[in-house]
Amino acid sequence: MTETIRILGIDPGLRHTGWGIIDVSGTRLSRVADGTISPAPDLALADRLLAIHSGLEEIIATHRPVEAAAEETFMASNAASALKLGHARAAALLAPARAGLPVAEYAARLVKKSVVGTGGADKNQIAAMIAILLPGCKAKDDAADALAVAICHAHHRKAASMGSAA
Amino acid sequence: MTETIRILGIDPGLRHTGWGIIDVSGTRLSRVADGTISPAPDLALADRLLAIHSGLEEIIATHRPVEAAAEETFMASNAASALKLGHARAAALLAPARAGLPVAEYAARLVKKSVVGTGGADKNQIAAMIAILLPGCKAKDDAADALAVAICHAHHRKAASMGSAA
Repeated sequence: MTETIRILGIDPGLRHTGWGIIDVSGTRLSRVADGTISPAPDLALADRLLAIHSGLEEIIATHRPVEAAAEETFMASNAASALKLGHARAAALLAPARAGLPVAEYAARLVKKSVVGTGGADKNQIAAMIAILLPGCKAKDDAADALAVAICHAHHRKAASMGSAA
Repeated sequence: MTETIRILGIDPGLRHTGWGIIDVSGTRLSRVADGTISPAPDLALADRLLAIHSGLEEIIATHRPVEAAAEETFMASNAASALKLGHARAAALLAPARAGLPVAEYAARLVKKSVVGTGGADKNQIAAMIAILLPGCKAKDDAADALAVAICHAHHRKAASMGSAA
């Protein structure tokens, strides 16, 4: 009997934080749930961070993933965007960390390569491949990106346990 | 009888997060406690954020401040520093927000002006003025900066309640 591992993928953003949960059993992947957390933009910064953090806490409590993964920070084009992204990422990463889950990070190019086969894939290509890899899944945009990170982790945690290089 | 308000000031940083707690009673200020949280630099990012967040949670549980304040994000010189600062700030700001405390933010120049009288003060000038404003206080560096933010909030919350512009 093959063990089933439940993985939470996160695509953090201050306006929209995508999340997606998959089950991995051997080479078989299946979608459990996905969605997007969009804090009201008129909230104070601390409250927007709280909305992201509490949202993910609820999702973790409901679906009980055992491992989490997020995209590594890409280099934002300017300091102002980097600062916003940093805030959102921390609020997001803290939720699994506080729940005791290991949080893996993957470079954006590796995530795209794991899902589409090329590091330069765009959002539409990712959503299209997600629908093939996770039959019946209609996730788009940030939720699809979050599922892509979860799939990337499914591949690389397996590679690691087989002793091959990630 | 004048109400005593306990304020938590935070100076967030991924390597060192300063914190300081003061009591405000009318125009009288007194230091309650201060310190620095320095996560082990070899920890994974999520665990460093957890160390900052949990450290502040403990401090809030121990000292029970009712309001919190942090410096507004200064514009970091490059995207990489901004990203790190964003992570640290979010981990820090979430602790009072989760505890239900209002979190005020003040521009760095206003914090310096509130404490030293000029927006261009350096770290040594801030520490020297903190020792005068909070008799017996020997806080330095990040802890002194955190106390400065708390003092700035003490001045401006009063100004706000008296109806004058901050």
